[in-house]
Amino acid sequence: MDWAAAELVTGELRLWLFRGDAQGAAITAPAGDDPAAALRAMLAPGAAIDVIASGWPGSAPVRVPCPPPPPLPALALDPRVTLHALPGLVQDRPADLIGAQATRIAGHLARHPDFDGVLCLPGQQTVWAHLSAGEVVSFRSFLTGELLSALTASMPDGASAGFAEAVQDALSRPAGLAAELSSARARLAMGLTTPPAAHAQMAGLLIGAELAAARPWWLGQPVTVIGHGWLADRYAEALVTQGLAPAMADPTRALLDGFRAARRAL
Amino acid sequence: MDWAAAELVTGELRLWLFRGDAQGAAITAPAGDDPAAALRAMLAPGAAIDVIASGWPGSAPVRVPCPPPPPLPALALDPRVTLHALPGLVQDRPADLIGAQATRIAGHLARHPDFDGVLCLPGQQTVWAHLSAGEVVSFRSFLTGELLSALTASMPDGASAGFAEAVQDALSRPAGLAAELSSARARLAMGLTTPPAAHAQMAGLLIGAELAAARPWWLGQPVTVIGHGWLADRYAEALVTQGLAPAMADPTRALLDGFRAARRAL
Repeated sequence: MDWAAAELVTGELRLWLFRGDAQGAAITAPAGDDPAAALRAMLAPGAAIDVIASGWPGSAPVRVPCPPPPPLPALALDPRVTLHALPGLVQDRPADLIGAQATRIAGHLARHPDFDGVLCLPGQQTVWAHLSAGEVVSFRSFLTGELLSALTASMPDGASAGFAEAVQDALSRPAGLAAELSSARARLAMGLTTPPAAHAQMAGLLIGAELAAARPWWLGQPVTVIGHGWLADRYAEALVTQGLAPAMADPTRALLDGFRAARRAL
Repeated sequence: MDWAAAELVTGELRLWLFRGDAQGAAITAPAGDDPAAALRAMLAPGAAIDVIASGWPGSAPVRVPCPPPPPLPALALDPRVTLHALPGLVQDRPADLIGAQATRIAGHLARHPDFDGVLCLPGQQTVWAHLSAGEVVSFRSFLTGELLSALTASMPDGASAGFAEAVQDALSRPAGLAAELSSARARLAMGLTTPPAAHAQMAGLLIGAELAAARPWWLGQPVTVIGHGWLADRYAEALVTQGLAPAMADPTRALLDGFRAARRAL
């Protein structure tokens, strides 16, 4: 391998080794308080290596509208390891900021350079980004995933019964969100519903309220959901209830494509 | 002392000793997995004692509209300790359920038997209750406090600058809640605001969205806020921005009044 890519998210460092465009081993480790030390420890002693990093702390973000930004000036972590941090994106009005997700957006554009539409990246912080003419025009992030995790920590997410109905409820009356969430939990405590159904309902309420606020992002737009798993499937299902036919894209592939594009820009 | 009162909330058992209506010592201990064992351990060996308990697990709630319900049939925890659990309140449409807060509502009615209006009890689960003719007519609970705690875990709550403006923003456009919360956090990450100001703004957004959904509860009603401290003060401030002049009542006094009323009903 001749270079490496690293993503730092929620205290975890994920490392991929590359030889040219071909991906080699992938390793994950806790980042601790000193991600640079964690990164050095993950790289076996040997030849000098370039590391492209996403979500790296202290990397000044770039203001939209802009094309996916190239890596910031290189930083020598030690005589062997050279770090190339990828900046996040920042927006003035409305004020918004994204870090590591910017690399997935860049990866999607690298694979689909003519993409003109909207990306939805579900997660603890869900991001909607409008792309056109090779640029990120604008974006908006929502704390929906984080709110859902906080409210449903102990509930399994197996079922999706009641999800679509809850999406519609919240889209129709988004102001009732906090009350409807409390009702959902009350029905669970009263034995009127099951934990998976309560989880699906609360997810539907939160995603429906997000869709109400994000309407300018998806209405009449081609939407691609970059994500996999339960939460990404629910975003897609919610968009389908609104008459859209979202495409799905793999988030790891988008991330690695973003790293490869940055590598070519070095 | 000749009786005791206990409140079980979020894994903690609070015990007050009484002689007649006069309150004696107050003790707090972790409830653990077996609140009955925790309660027995808190009561010094001695004469037989009646304990009135609020928020006790397994106590079947009473359906509104109803007067504050009397204790459920007594339960002998051991030959010495007799437990009288106070039921919570349940509502069918919209589905809702409250536990320990029902005792504070009962206490307020015991002290103000002619109260006709609305109580607001801020907390992790904030409760709005409409009282008339000595009955709890209806109520609604909101998970606003829990959402705020989850989003602002590491932020100090010293200042309230920007709070009133955020309340107004959320009341005007409650659908934008998740996006505005994300903006507030982005502004903090971008260094455009301070942690206390971000906290105040997020509190304003969440409470404003709650007020939008709870409008039928407070609009044109005399409102008493039962609570003290930062969160209760913010609810009062938010109501003042809407032209109301809420009264404030002490939550511990309301709780102990509720226990005393239940004791008289034994």
